[in-house]
Amino acid sequence: MKTLQDYIDKLNSLNFKEMYNNDFFWTWDKTDDELEAVFTVADALRFMREHNISTKVFESGLGISIFRDNSTRTRFSFASACNLLGLEVQDLDEKKSQIAHGETVRETANMVSFMADVIGIRDDMYIGKGHTYQKEFMDAVTEGNKDGILEQRPTLVNLQCDVDHPTQCMADMLHIIHEFGGVENLKGKKLAMTWAYSPSYGKPLSVPQGVIGLMTRFGMDVVLAHPEGYDVMPEVEEIAKKNAESSGGSFTKTNSMEEAFKNADIVYPKSWAPFAAMEKRTNLYGEGDFDGIDKLEKELLAQNAQHKDWACTEELMKTTKDGKALYLHCLPADITGVSCETGEVDASVFDRYRIPLYKEASFKPYVIAAMIMLSKFENPQDILKKLEVKAAPRIME
Amino acid sequence: MKTLQDYIDKLNSLNFKEMYNNDFFWTWDKTDDELEAVFTVADALRFMREHNISTKVFESGLGISIFRDNSTRTRFSFASACNLLGLEVQDLDEKKSQIAHGETVRETANMVSFMADVIGIRDDMYIGKGHTYQKEFMDAVTEGNKDGILEQRPTLVNLQCDVDHPTQCMADMLHIIHEFGGVENLKGKKLAMTWAYSPSYGKPLSVPQGVIGLMTRFGMDVVLAHPEGYDVMPEVEEIAKKNAESSGGSFTKTNSMEEAFKNADIVYPKSWAPFAAMEKRTNLYGEGDFDGIDKLEKELLAQNAQHKDWACTEELMKTTKDGKALYLHCLPADITGVSCETGEVDASVFDRYRIPLYKEASFKPYVIAAMIMLSKFENPQDILKKLEVKAAPRIME
Amino acid sequence: MKTLQDYIDKLNSLNFKEMYNNDFFWTWDKTDDELEAVFTVADALRFMREHNISTKVFESGLGISIFRDNSTRTRFSFASACNLLGLEVQDLDEKKSQIAHGETVRETANMVSFMADVIGIRDDMYIGKGHTYQKEFMDAVTEGNKDGILEQRPTLVNLQCDVDHPTQCMADMLHIIHEFGGVENLKGKKLAMTWAYSPSYGKPLSVPQGVIGLMTRFGMDVVLAHPEGYDVMPEVEEIAKKNAESSGGSFTKTNSMEEAFKNADIVYPKSWAPFAAMEKRTNLYGEGDFDGIDKLEKELLAQNAQHKDWACTEELMKTTKDGKALYLHCLPADITGVSCETGEVDASVFDRYRIPLYKEASFKPYVIAAMIMLSKFENPQDILKKLEVKAAPRIME
Repeated sequence: MKTLQDYIDKLNSLNFKEMYNNDFFWTWDKTDDELEAVFTVADALRFMREHNISTKVFESGLGISIFRDNSTRTRFSFASACNLLGLEVQDLDEKKSQIAHGETVRETANMVSFMADVIGIRDDMYIGKGHTYQKEFMDAVTEGNKDGILEQRPTLVNLQCDVDHPTQCMADMLHIIHEFGGVENLKGKKLAMTWAYSPSYGKPLSVPQGVIGLMTRFGMDVVLAHPEGYDVMPEVEEIAKKNAESSGGSFTKTNSMEEAFKNADIVYPKSWAPFAAMEKRTNLYGEGDFDGIDKLEKELLAQNAQHKDWACTEELMKTTKDGKALYLHCLPADITGVSCETGEVDASVFDRYRIPLYKEASFKPYVIAAMIMLSKFENPQDILKKLEVKAAPRIME
Repeated sequence: MKTLQDYIDKLNSLNFKEMYNNDFFWTWDKTDDELEAVFTVADALRFMREHNISTKVFESGLGISIFRDNSTRTRFSFASACNLLGLEVQDLDEKKSQIAHGETVRETANMVSFMADVIGIRDDMYIGKGHTYQKEFMDAVTEGNKDGILEQRPTLVNLQCDVDHPTQCMADMLHIIHEFGGVENLKGKKLAMTWAYSPSYGKPLSVPQGVIGLMTRFGMDVVLAHPEGYDVMPEVEEIAKKNAESSGGSFTKTNSMEEAFKNADIVYPKSWAPFAAMEKRTNLYGEGDFDGIDKLEKELLAQNAQHKDWACTEELMKTTKDGKALYLHCLPADITGVSCETGEVDASVFDRYRIPLYKEASFKPYVIAAMIMLSKFENPQDILKKLEVKAAPRIME
Repeated sequence: MKTLQDYIDKLNSLNFKEMYNNDFFWTWDKTDDELEAVFTVADALRFMREHNISTKVFESGLGISIFRDNSTRTRFSFASACNLLGLEVQDLDEKKSQIAHGETVRETANMVSFMADVIGIRDDMYIGKGHTYQKEFMDAVTEGNKDGILEQRPTLVNLQCDVDHPTQCMADMLHIIHEFGGVENLKGKKLAMTWAYSPSYGKPLSVPQGVIGLMTRFGMDVVLAHPEGYDVMPEVEEIAKKNAESSGGSFTKTNSMEEAFKNADIVYPKSWAPFAAMEKRTNLYGEGDFDGIDKLEKELLAQNAQHKDWACTEELMKTTKDGKALYLHCLPADITGVSCETGEVDASVFDRYRIPLYKEASFKPYVIAAMIMLSKFENPQDILKKLEVKAAPRIME
C-alpha cells in the first residue's frame, strides 16, 4: 500500500465491530476479518511512524503489564506499543507489591485498573493456569466497570498464556504475509511447525499451539511434527483441523521432522514440552510435591536427550522448497555451538536468516498497538484519518 | 455538582493559598478549607476524566516515588495521579541505587530532585522514623532550592508515614461524603474506628491514627475501640479530642467492640499493633537486637490471639444503625475463611460491601492528584477553567 | 547569555554536523567545537526550563537504559534528560529479562531497539569490557538499521564505561566554566586530579581518566597525582599529553598530593584502583578464579591502607590558590567521620563545598539531554528557535 488512505479503505471493507471494548485472548476467538483488521492497523501504524506522523491517541492513561514469567522481547514490545499510542506502562511487580497472601485476583484487578486502559498479561508457567488467571482478571474488571468502580474497562492483550501466544503468532504471520507479498499468495504453501531439541526442558506449548491455531486459517498446508509423546493440547489440534477445513488448506501430523521439512515453504523448528508432562507438573505443583517435580524434570531431560537429531540442520534445510524455506523462530533460539552445545538450529542456518528473523520480531510492537487501537476505538479508520490531518511529527522537524 | 464551573465556584469560596508550594504531611496541618479544596479538586478531576477532558498540566517533569515498604494500591494510585497530570513516575529503588553506606538523606534528596515536581514517600515501618525521614528529605530540597541547586522545589505527598496516612484517609473521607450526600449530612453520625484481630502482627498505626485525626473534624461522633493495651499515639488522640470539640462532634474511647458498633453509621474495623510495642520494636531495631525483635513478635502474636473475638461479624453488623452501617477498610482486609482462618471480617460482610469498598479505594488517585495540583498551582481554578476551554480529549475522539 | 538567541548564535558559529546520528563514547572522539556545542545546548535547555518553555521534541519514543552497575545520580539524570525531551525511559533489567544464556549482544540490541531513539549504557565493572560491550551493542543497531530491521538508529549516550565517564566529566567541566565565568578564563589555571584514600577498593578509573582526557583541552595545567602503582590507562595519559600540547596547557604527573594541591585553582581528590590490578582482576574473572579475586581484593585493601594520608584535609586546602580552590567530586564522596572512619575528604571541607558540589551534579541531566539533541537533530538551532516560538509552557500557566 502506498498511502494511509489505502489502509483506511481496507479497514472500511472489514467487519471488526466486536473488537471494540473487547479482549484479545486467543486468535481463534476472532473472525478472519478481525485478524485482518489487526494486520492492517499494524501496517498503518508502521507506515505512519516511518513517515514521522505521531500516533499519540491518548493524552494520559496507563498500560498495566503483569509478567509472571521473565520476558525481554514481549516486555519491550508492550512498552513500545503503549508509548506509541501515548499510554504509560506501569508494571505490576508481584514481588514489590503488597498482594496479601490470599488476596483475590478480583481485588488486585480492580485496584490497579482505576486509570488503566490496557492490561497486558504474560502467564505461561503452568498448564491450566495462565488463561484461567487472565480470564478471572478480566471478569473482575468487567464487573468493576459495570458496578461503577472503574470509569473505563481496560482491555486485555494476552502477552502469552498456557494456550496461545497471539502477539507472537500474529507477528510471525504478518512477517509471512510481507515475505510472500500478501495473504492471497499463501494458499497451498506448506508450513512445518516442528519440535526441535533444546538442552532446556519445559519450554511453553503456547507457540506451537498458537501457530497451528492461526496459520491453518490461510489455506496453507500446515504440518505439526514432533517425536512421539510430545503432543500439544488436543483442543488446539481440533481447532487447527477445523480451520484447515474451512480455509481450504490442510492440517496433518507426523513424527518425522524430515517429512515435515520436505518441500516446506516455511519452517518453524522449536522446542516444547509434552502436554501430558506439563499437566502432570501442574498437578505436582498443586500438591506441593517438589521432589516429584525434580524427578519429572530429570525424566523429561532424559526423554529430550533421545531426540537430539531433531535439529534444523543445513542438510534438512536443503530438502525444503528450492532449499530456501522461510525459517521462523520466536527467539531466543538455542543455536548449536553458540548458545549451547546441541540445540534447535545450526549456527550457519540461523546466521543466514538473522535479518528476516529480526524483522519477524519487529512486527510485535505494531501488532500489540493494533490490538489496543481496535479495542479502544469504535472507528479506528476515523482516528487514523484525524492523525494524518493533524500531522503532528513524532520527532520535531 | 453538574458542571465544572460548580467546582470552580466552590474553590473560589475557599482559602487554600498556603497550600501553594507546600507539602502534605498530615491532615491536621491543614485547615478545613484546605481539606475541602482537596476534595473539590479531586471531584473536579474525576468529573473531567469522566467527560474525557485531558487534565495534563505538565509537559514534562518527574514524580519521584520512594517506597520503603511494599505497596500495590498506593503505588498505582500515585502512578495514576502523576500520569493524569502529565508527570512521569521515576521510582527510587534503594536496592538498585548507589546510595553509599552513610550517604546523607540531604544528598540523595537533592540528587534525585533536579527535575522533580513531586515526591511521594511511603515510610511506615518504624515508629519515630517515617515522618522524620520525610521531614529531613523535604528540608533538604527546600534548602537545595534556596541555594540555587534545584530550579524548582518538589512538593511532598506523604504516601504513609508512621503517624498519618493522609491519602488513604482523605480517600476514605471522600467516599463517606459521597455516600452520605455531602459533608453537611455528617453532623451527629457515629463512626467506629475499631481494632480487629488479624493473624499478622505489627500492622501500621497510621490508618487508625489518620482516621481519628481526620474524621473528628466533621461533627461526627468518633469512637476509637481496641482491646486494652492497643493504644495509638497519645499525641494523635489529643488532636482528635481538639478536633471534636471545635467541630461540635465527639471523640470517645472504649475497650468494647460491641459498644463501638452499637448504632454506628460507619464502621472501620482493622488490625494494628500497640503503639508501645512498636516503640519498643524501633528501639530494639536501633540496638540491632534481632533476637529481641523475634521475642517481641512472639509476644505480640500471643497477645493478639487472645482477641480473636474482635471481628466484624454479621452479628455485630446487625447492631449498627438499621443493621447497615457503611463498612470501611483500607484493603487488603484479612477475611475469615478467605485470606486466613480467622480474620478481621466475615466473608459475607466483606462480600456485601465489596463494591463500596472498591469505590472507596478509587478515590485515592484523585486525592493524590488534587494534592499535587494544589501544591503546584497558585490558582487551580484558573487552570481547571483553561483545561475546560482547551477541551483536549484524554482519548482521541 | 541573556536570550535564547545568544545560544543559537553561539551554535551557529560551531561545526558539529558529525554529531548527527552519531554516538557519544568518549570526549576525545569529539572536536572542541562539538564539546562546546554540548555545553551550549545544555545551557540553552536549562535556560528554557527556567523560563518554563517546554523542550518536548519527541511525541513518542523510548530511551533505553542499561545499568550493569548500580546507579542513583546517573539513573535519575538519564531519566530526567529523556523526560525533558519527551522520551520515556524503559530500563533493560537483565535480571528480569529472558536473555538466554548465550544470547548474543547483537540480538538483544536489536530486540529492545525497535522504537528506541536513545540507548544509555553504564558498564564500568571490568577493564576491557565496558567499552567493548557498548561498541558491540551500537554496531548491532547500526547494522540492524542498515538491514531494515530498525526504522531508526538509536544513538548511544555512554553513561560510564571502563575508559571514560563523559556525562560526569562534561557536567564537571560545565560547572567549572560557570564558576570561572567562561572557557576563556581557564588558560593557565591549575587543576589537580588526585588519588585519595577510601576504605573501599576498586573504584572505577573512568572518572580520573575522563577528567585528564577532557580537562587538558582548555589550556589548563592539569596534574595527575597518585601513590606509586596507582597508574591509570597509559592510552589515556597519551591523550592527555597531546591535548595539553595543542591547547597550550600542560599535563604532568606526580606521586605527591601536596605538590598537586599547591596553588591549584581546582582540586578533584578521589579514590580509584590501580589499572594493572584491575586488568588482573578482569583476567581472574575471565578464568573464573574467584579465590584469586578475593586474594587480590585483600592485597589491594592492604595497599590502599598504606596511603590513608592521601586525604583532602583542611590543611591541604589551605595550600591551594588563596586557600580556596574549587573542590570537585562526582559523588558520593567518602567523607571522614561521616560515611566512613577515614576517607577521601574532611567533613568540614566537604560541608563548605556542598552547595557547589550539588550544583556540579545538577548539570548532568542537561549534558545528557544536549548529547541526545545533538545526535537526533541535524539543526538543533532551528529546533530551539521553534520551541521558543511555540512557547508551550512546561507547567501550565
